[in-house]
Amino acid sequence: MDPNEFKDFSKDMTSFIVNYLENIRERRVLPTVEPGYMKPLLPEEAPQKAEDWQNIMNDLERVIMPGVTHWHSPKFHAYFPTAQSYPAIVADMLSGAIACIGFTWIASPACTELEVIMLDWVGKMIDLPKPFLACSGGKGGGVIQGTASEATLVALLGAKVKKIKQVKEQHPDWSDSDIVGKLVAYGSAQAHSSVERAGLLGGVKHRLLETDSKHQLRGETLAEAIRADKESGLIPFYVVGTLGTTSSCTFDRIDELGPICNSEEIWLHVDAAYAGSAFICPEFRYLMRGVERADSFNFNPHKWMLVNFDCSPLWLKDPTYVINAFNVDPLYLKHDMQGSAPDYRHWQIPLGRRFRALKLWFVLRLYGVENLQKYIRNHVAQAHEFESLVLADPRFEVVEEVVLGLVCFRLKGSNELNELLLKRINGAGNIHLVPSKINDCYFLRLAICSRFSESKDIQYSWQEIKTRADEVLKENSA
Amino acid sequence: MDPNEFKDFSKDMTSFIVNYLENIRERRVLPTVEPGYMKPLLPEEAPQKAEDWQNIMNDLERVIMPGVTHWHSPKFHAYFPTAQSYPAIVADMLSGAIACIGFTWIASPACTELEVIMLDWVGKMIDLPKPFLACSGGKGGGVIQGTASEATLVALLGAKVKKIKQVKEQHPDWSDSDIVGKLVAYGSAQAHSSVERAGLLGGVKHRLLETDSKHQLRGETLAEAIRADKESGLIPFYVVGTLGTTSSCTFDRIDELGPICNSEEIWLHVDAAYAGSAFICPEFRYLMRGVERADSFNFNPHKWMLVNFDCSPLWLKDPTYVINAFNVDPLYLKHDMQGSAPDYRHWQIPLGRRFRALKLWFVLRLYGVENLQKYIRNHVAQAHEFESLVLADPRFEVVEEVVLGLVCFRLKGSNELNELLLKRINGAGNIHLVPSKINDCYFLRLAICSRFSESKDIQYSWQEIKTRADEVLKENSA
Repeated sequence: MDPNEFKDFSKDMTSFIVNYLENIRERRVLPTVEPGYMKPLLPEEAPQKAEDWQNIMNDLERVIMPGVTHWHSPKFHAYFPTAQSYPAIVADMLSGAIACIGFTWIASPACTELEVIMLDWVGKMIDLPKPFLACSGGKGGGVIQGTASEATLVALLGAKVKKIKQVKEQHPDWSDSDIVGKLVAYGSAQAHSSVERAGLLGGVKHRLLETDSKHQLRGETLAEAIRADKESGLIPFYVVGTLGTTSSCTFDRIDELGPICNSEEIWLHVDAAYAGSAFICPEFRYLMRGVERADSFNFNPHKWMLVNFDCSPLWLKDPTYVINAFNVDPLYLKHDMQGSAPDYRHWQIPLGRRFRALKLWFVLRLYGVENLQKYIRNHVAQAHEFESLVLADPRFEVVEEVVLGLVCFRLKGSNELNELLLKRINGAGNIHLVPSKINDCYFLRLAICSRFSESKDIQYSWQEIKTRADEVLKENSA
Repeated sequence: MDPNEFKDFSKDMTSFIVNYLENIRERRVLPTVEPGYMKPLLPEEAPQKAEDWQNIMNDLERVIMPGVTHWHSPKFHAYFPTAQSYPAIVADMLSGAIACIGFTWIASPACTELEVIMLDWVGKMIDLPKPFLACSGGKGGGVIQGTASEATLVALLGAKVKKIKQVKEQHPDWSDSDIVGKLVAYGSAQAHSSVERAGLLGGVKHRLLETDSKHQLRGETLAEAIRADKESGLIPFYVVGTLGTTSSCTFDRIDELGPICNSEEIWLHVDAAYAGSAFICPEFRYLMRGVERADSFNFNPHKWMLVNFDCSPLWLKDPTYVINAFNVDPLYLKHDMQGSAPDYRHWQIPLGRRFRALKLWFVLRLYGVENLQKYIRNHVAQAHEFESLVLADPRFEVVEEVVLGLVCFRLKGSNELNELLLKRINGAGNIHLVPSKINDCYFLRLAICSRFSESKDIQYSWQEIKTRADEVLKENSA
């Protein structure tokens, strides 16, 4: 493809994107295709000869769009938001053109240095304690991981290395596998599935601890679990505290978990994947009270801060242990400047990495902190608007305090009734929600997701839910 | 940012990219900045108010470009190539606009289905045996991983689950940690650092096996290692065979390793990260002879097939064990179609994933198989052109057979002399190479990397190397 074709293609794609996004509200949020829909639409093999780019543009509505779930529709309320913005798309174009692999400083100094600085910017925006920031001049600093799953796993691996080292000092005769067999990690029963998965991947025992009546993990529960495990000869080494659980956006009590972890020499990782973005607004920072006791902190600007996936910053007070977990140092990756800037290959699971800090830089500058705060506050206000609508209808109940952009609600009545309601809502496909269940109580989750979402969309979604509830209740009473 | 600003910004960025890439040859390939160069160029905090996008464009040459190592310059010969093309950049724009997170089929059917089909297309292009392909109708199929490091780790975790299950059937009284403590994985001493790292991350013993005089891992070496380990009560479970090592682009003898792994019930993973792209040309397929015996196969179109990072397809003959290694199944991720299409969240370490199959689709269609083959052959021809230049100069020697796009060479003489030569070359910054060392023999690696590379660039690079060699030899004899 020559440069002029690229210019035309890029221009045409830009128009397509604008047309797609600015009119996304008109599309059915959930596709109606069945598994295997695409196979008959495409040839069985790649073409031998080059095609014109116009062919691809013509195929987008025929092949791709019928199978797209429109995550950026204001009618999409499933999971949690994933971010998307024009500045981030343009930043990724530049990232794709420079296309460096920033595994070491020398492999592209700008890639490493912009990341260090951006993670200081973001850390300051959410008022993260200084020991986490590179600009503090200490050991601390941040790195962009691909996902919160990876951040949780990376921190776990760092914690594992640290604890093995500690235990070996006391028991030089114990082998690594003796020690690993005794290690135990903890998270709340409400933690994201990736927390349990990190334990699986890391090859260690992992306990899901019960939460209190507000679905928060409390200090006394952790303390009791640690006591029991130590009594059985196990070695507690890692705790994940969640700020903003996926099921219902509740908040573990970091202020209670921190002191226990510190005194027991257990690594405390804070997973604020969704909620972290809200901390750019001072009024939500009370939710991370006690964070100064944590060893690592992670959140996803690619969820709620308008930076396209993937961008999951992880801050570490002391990256040494993570670096030691991964450090394999072949000659072809060595360079003269080692030690004077981070070589991010030692901070993550993959070796390769894109120039992702550009997305942060573009978004932070082209929105500015004020507009990002406004964005968060606007979504939270819409969640409260929806909450009021639910509360005003006596057939419904709200099952969890609405703190940020998620409303957990249900029809008063059986789980089966609510399962039927959800099936009906998603079957109609005008809006999209997913369910959750806590302590055998099944409920629906409505997350404010789209950057196009307005009050009128909330009203529309509520009308749609009411219509489906009318149907279900009518059938049920018939 | 409103849609019209986005159109202007995108257009301006497109021009910037064309201007950057089409004139990339004129830039110094290695930057001259020192660690910390960027800090004084940027504010200490994110701006409160939104800036104009023109400010960012104005800052690119001031802040970013001075610190960029230009991986796509034809003067860049370090590491291995990383891919970049106009079609892939446009595909990523669309991926950024749709911005779905394809963790399950329902989360965006198009994202999963295009990936399944593209991995069949690519599998057929490199003539991968049918049991690896989804279109065969068996269990097999492919998934796009972020990097080869992740593919190697994912396969190792699958192998670990499989072997633990097998061993438990024979020894129901052994605990998981008893078994894990006995597991041992193997790779060649020439395997990529990520292979050793996968062992570290997976918490298992890992042996680097010696290679033969051509630096290939042979069957008899593996057989002997397995015999010795079994004699000590260990349990061999995983072998990585490398096609195209990073140090010198040599090829392990898969045809010898396969039968041994099959009869010993050991998982054989083939890491063809760099070389895999060459297999779209039939004349290079002899290098993967025996691949039908492998359990998993991985290569990086993001290295040498013009698909931007990250795109690292992994094919599995039987994904069951990988799926079992990761399967954590919360209600909010369940859906009605489970089982009728792959839910790729069970095939990878992260939960989230971008719509990466678009890049493959765009590149395969807009280049066509013929042009991709031409691209590979052109790079291989340039490597041979460089090889001839080296061979014609009696001061130099070529230390490894040139098979694909990498030439390993050195000045006849001491390692120190060659270290000095490399330091001088990279110090001048007109071209960029990295070294390697095998059996205490230090050498320089010249990889053909850029899609802009032509014969004239090879001649330039050789002149540059000769000039630096003249200097070094003159000083050394003085």
